[in-house]
Amino acid sequence: MAPMKLRDLGEFGLIDTIRARAATAPGVRRGIGDDAAELELPAGERLLTSTDLLLEAVHFDFAWISPFDLGAKAVAVNLSDIAAMGGTARFLYVGLACPADAAIADLDAFIDGVLTEAGCHGAVLVGGDTCRSPGPWIISVTVEGSVPAGEAVGRDGARPGDRLLVSGTLGDSALALALWQEGSVPEPFLAARHCRPTPRLALGRELARLGLASAMIDLSDGLAADLQHILESSGVSAEVNRADLPLSSAFREHLDREPHRFDLALGGGEDYELLCSVPASRVNEALAAASRLGVPLTPIGTLLPGAAGLLLRDPDGSARPLRVRGYDHFCPVQEPAVQ
Amino acid sequence: MAPMKLRDLGEFGLIDTIRARAATAPGVRRGIGDDAAELELPAGERLLTSTDLLLEAVHFDFAWISPFDLGAKAVAVNLSDIAAMGGTARFLYVGLACPADAAIADLDAFIDGVLTEAGCHGAVLVGGDTCRSPGPWIISVTVEGSVPAGEAVGRDGARPGDRLLVSGTLGDSALALALWQEGSVPEPFLAARHCRPTPRLALGRELARLGLASAMIDLSDGLAADLQHILESSGVSAEVNRADLPLSSAFREHLDREPHRFDLALGGGEDYELLCSVPASRVNEALAAASRLGVPLTPIGTLLPGAAGLLLRDPDGSARPLRVRGYDHFCPVQEPAVQ
Repeated sequence: MAPMKLRDLGEFGLIDTIRARAATAPGVRRGIGDDAAELELPAGERLLTSTDLLLEAVHFDFAWISPFDLGAKAVAVNLSDIAAMGGTARFLYVGLACPADAAIADLDAFIDGVLTEAGCHGAVLVGGDTCRSPGPWIISVTVEGSVPAGEAVGRDGARPGDRLLVSGTLGDSALALALWQEGSVPEPFLAARHCRPTPRLALGRELARLGLASAMIDLSDGLAADLQHILESSGVSAEVNRADLPLSSAFREHLDREPHRFDLALGGGEDYELLCSVPASRVNEALAAASRLGVPLTPIGTLLPGAAGLLLRDPDGSARPLRVRGYDHFCPVQEPAVQ
Repeated sequence: MAPMKLRDLGEFGLIDTIRARAATAPGVRRGIGDDAAELELPAGERLLTSTDLLLEAVHFDFAWISPFDLGAKAVAVNLSDIAAMGGTARFLYVGLACPADAAIADLDAFIDGVLTEAGCHGAVLVGGDTCRSPGPWIISVTVEGSVPAGEAVGRDGARPGDRLLVSGTLGDSALALALWQEGSVPEPFLAARHCRPTPRLALGRELARLGLASAMIDLSDGLAADLQHILESSGVSAEVNRADLPLSSAFREHLDREPHRFDLALGGGEDYELLCSVPASRVNEALAAASRLGVPLTPIGTLLPGAAGLLLRDPDGSARPLRVRGYDHFCPVQEPAVQ
């Protein structure tokens, strides 16, 4: 029997399937199935909202990501934005356009991935949109979270003297992608870091609750480019110690053979780790909070006054300015993103 | 000089352009330029959220819609969902993927359309996402509104005996599209009804505030298909009087020459008018409210008990069941949508 295709199920069949599997949660007055979702936020909390668009052949390739992982990752990268504000994730909307000959098994796996990742982080799917795509899979995800008034952490609060800290390890995701693009097969650890990023919601929330982070951002475009956003928004400069950048053992093994891979830890994207600034007097509190949550958090540098931008200090003590160019969707650079 | 292309401006240039032009509003603590928007809703109000995906060649064709109108329509169709819940529109997010060789003038016009339509209805652009598309323009819009607790109107509150009322006129938009697809040029009124739908926010809000609508939906898939959603959600049937359907004079002129066009008033999509049920004793109040707002509102039928579905009563007094099939993106029907 031929595998069942989306056109056999139909749009309304697909929506019914999703609706039947979507969970409910406190605060959801109306979920999937009306003109709009109707929701309540906890008293005294503000709304946080972020939205992302993911396109096949631009953001992902089924040659190296499964439909399940794609669903999970589409959610995770949005949740990561809520984490970076210090919020709690609550409500999720997924728009999906795919070709009519998409296999139902792939759609089921994609929805599984969405619901699994959402469920892991306390978010509930309450709406979306489906339509036919003339070609590529197209995914839009919107997430709504909340944060107690006064606790949200922006990009603009960093002060000279604050220390810079980053969660997890850097460059794993970009290295996996580079290996795939070169025709190699990355180790499972690196592949998982690319396909199943971990939104650091508990850490972001705890740093915000305790008032430890003066500024915070999640790393989607790479450490150097995303740090630049904090520097510009806060009007400060930064010195980052090359030797302090947290690297996984899998990444280090590649580095031993190919030292140029180091650029991926600075300029590669899709780490989805949190980068934050913390007043020097409170770094130990931040490290203790991360330790309680079992999340690695590493001091990597210091914020400086002035507009010098980003300096990279090498182990020999010399420092050089990093010229940073984040990935630009409309004019991709041929040169390396970090120089 | 060659017209400027998106690749000349770049992604960050585009975002800066949008950010510089976006307005602010009460309740916006952080808008464009952080990981997520941070927002406040009025005390005692619940959050309403709706999201839509619009794809070139599936939902629109630049042969008959301008970039300005496309921006305005993308916003309007989302605002219409907030109207159908009886809410007030507040915050807007636009994801846009377009090819790197898109003309800057077209992008500027699209953004103009977005901001103009949002501004007309008190909504403010606070976030979004931009990326390169490998081909078609891809637009995702999410709108957040709010509604006082207890006032939201769903699809499930219609009761036997309630009257059915619809705003504006039916079929104009679908007729314009049919004419374009046949190679004709629709009259400006019909073209505008397709390209610049009017979200009925003030009417929806007033019907909700006064507790007049027992159920409400906006017409995106056509009267028959969208009424079916109310009937199924509320567990009722309906009788609609063919002679009572509100038709524009432009639509009637076509009907005089081509009677088969009538199906477009029942089964054509994209009217973006409000369809609501109102207890019979309160119909005059609803008509008076619409009259105060200057919005046409027309009684077209009555809700009945049981599961007979949708009956169409002809002027000669005979009634026949309408078999309804809304447009299915994954298995478009060859047969007419209404029979």
